[in-house]
Amino acid sequence: MERRQFLKGAALGGVAASALAAPAIAQERKEIIIVSTWGRDFPGLGTSAQRLSERITQLSEGRLVTQYFAAGERVGAFDVFDEVASGNAQAYIGADYYWVGKHPAWAYFTSVPFGMTNTEWSAWIKFKNGQALWDELGAEFGLKCLPAGATGTQAGGWFNKLIETPDDLRGLKMRIPGLGGSVMSKLGVSTVSLPGGQIYENLVSGAIEATEWVGPYNDYFMKLYEAAKYYYTGGMHEPGGGLSFGMNAGFWGGLTDWEKALITAACYEELANQAEEAIANNGVYLNRLVNDHGVQVESFSDEVWDAFGEASEEVFEETADHSPLAKKINDDFQAALREEGRFMKNFEMTFVNQRNRVLGL
Amino acid sequence: MERRQFLKGAALGGVAASALAAPAIAQERKEIIIVSTWGRDFPGLGTSAQRLSERITQLSEGRLVTQYFAAGERVGAFDVFDEVASGNAQAYIGADYYWVGKHPAWAYFTSVPFGMTNTEWSAWIKFKNGQALWDELGAEFGLKCLPAGATGTQAGGWFNKLIETPDDLRGLKMRIPGLGGSVMSKLGVSTVSLPGGQIYENLVSGAIEATEWVGPYNDYFMKLYEAAKYYYTGGMHEPGGGLSFGMNAGFWGGLTDWEKALITAACYEELANQAEEAIANNGVYLNRLVNDHGVQVESFSDEVWDAFGEASEEVFEETADHSPLAKKINDDFQAALREEGRFMKNFEMTFVNQRNRVLGL
Repeated sequence: MERRQFLKGAALGGVAASALAAPAIAQERKEIIIVSTWGRDFPGLGTSAQRLSERITQLSEGRLVTQYFAAGERVGAFDVFDEVASGNAQAYIGADYYWVGKHPAWAYFTSVPFGMTNTEWSAWIKFKNGQALWDELGAEFGLKCLPAGATGTQAGGWFNKLIETPDDLRGLKMRIPGLGGSVMSKLGVSTVSLPGGQIYENLVSGAIEATEWVGPYNDYFMKLYEAAKYYYTGGMHEPGGGLSFGMNAGFWGGLTDWEKALITAACYEELANQAEEAIANNGVYLNRLVNDHGVQVESFSDEVWDAFGEASEEVFEETADHSPLAKKINDDFQAALREEGRFMKNFEMTFVNQRNRVLGL
Repeated sequence: MERRQFLKGAALGGVAASALAAPAIAQERKEIIIVSTWGRDFPGLGTSAQRLSERITQLSEGRLVTQYFAAGERVGAFDVFDEVASGNAQAYIGADYYWVGKHPAWAYFTSVPFGMTNTEWSAWIKFKNGQALWDELGAEFGLKCLPAGATGTQAGGWFNKLIETPDDLRGLKMRIPGLGGSVMSKLGVSTVSLPGGQIYENLVSGAIEATEWVGPYNDYFMKLYEAAKYYYTGGMHEPGGGLSFGMNAGFWGGLTDWEKALITAACYEELANQAEEAIANNGVYLNRLVNDHGVQVESFSDEVWDAFGEASEEVFEETADHSPLAKKINDDFQAALREEGRFMKNFEMTFVNQRNRVLGL
């Protein structure tokens, strides 16, 4: 691609002309090609990724010039890992649990069943051992990943029938990636991992009968309600939904300290932004799903939750058995979850449960 | 202060010499004097404020040079508002509910009784009407404030006796600022607002008999357990604990778009950082309080929560009666709280309560 064409593309991506023109810094410019697992302009996941891409260029005054490719614009959603590991692109934005086929421990850097909420997960990544363990895993594949988004607790999923007991899951064909998919498999579900852009057509055609995606704000635009009317509240499979800014390790290693700090700050800002934007919008879109599209909101019974719990114990045992690194990551994650979770139960949960009771929420 | 002395002070504050020396940008340097309500190096609140100050200089490569003054180093903790509004300093870091004497609506920009958790609050500030309303209030005092920290749900407080019924509160002398203090006053508590640096001496001397501060990590270093052994879990008064980077409005107005974006990104990063750092540390320090210092952890009864709820309704009515702006802010906050809170109940709370049940947390 010619330089002129590239700059034109970057400018379309939201770079202010004045920033690019600043003469004192022009010679230090670095280009970052970002490939994403999300569709162009998709509300929530897609717009968050694009915002992060533009923010890096903005905060660096055009010294780090990003060029963003949505899923399918340069490579397919699930090809971004190889595109970046190989050095063809500098970074991807996506959910690292898509790579469990390469190593099951990738799941801990998105979300795992009965795991952490997004704030608990961010605390583990940024202020406990999470980032160091992510670095250790990433190094095996030539990657350096930073947390760059979080969905918050995801919906239990879209079903075309009521799920009242674990038996109702048996034989179901469902799209659910990561270790959550492994849990569902143990309960007799036939699971598949599909990128977002392929879910609707598979659900409408009947190739799958159920799917999870994110939560009301993101899910609304997928129109999944056209093929499945039962929408389950907070599920077991993705309580945090953390996303990754996965960089080629050689590219990261060649950055200056300032460039590293700048990219980290932009990723941390978007890590919080995405989750908060979802909180701001989810209530509104849940109402639309119910009132405008006849969606029926349900919650899994204790019996179903107990079955999820037993199956997830097996999944974690199998994951830890994969390799010493998988065991190390699982053990650290589970210990941090229990320590943070007990505190949150005593403080935030005590408050929220009492607030909701007193205010009648 | 001489220039040389100033630069020395800035360097001690963590500015890399290489950043200051960059020749191409030296002429664009701006100085930001930051005054804080927190003590120097105080773990949690203080270290978070200092980190934000250093981060602005780091991310701007020394083009925005901050000089940080902890409480008492330039002005007293409660004098930072006037110091910045008058233009003597460019910014303060603190809790805006300290200014309820100037206008009661400042409380909504820290935390109010039965209000929002820190993620719900951040969603309101950044993705609903919160920032616009904060700007409207700030403009009345010549200030522009950004969210720059959050404690998470605060502890119910330190007491020297059990609080089993609302009657046990009557006549108690307690340090509790903001609208939480107003709620306690309605229940017969004699309340006072003291900066952090004065709490310990007042509690030990008996001038106050109870106090709230933050949570286990911050509270541990206050040694409040030496004078009060009963520590209450998540309280009604500060479920979010948002902090403010309050700038002189004229200073903010004179910044370039890039400088505004840079400061905003640093504030948003620290907004999340502080809350996550607390989550990472609170469990550890709660254990130390109990095991090393004989602290007894208690939770308020439903009866006490109901009394808090009734009193807080009165407090909100009185606050809304103060002025059209106070009513506008209260009404918007209460509506957003209910919309976000109902969603969170169905999703994050459904998951967390089931997770804690299944895992036995």
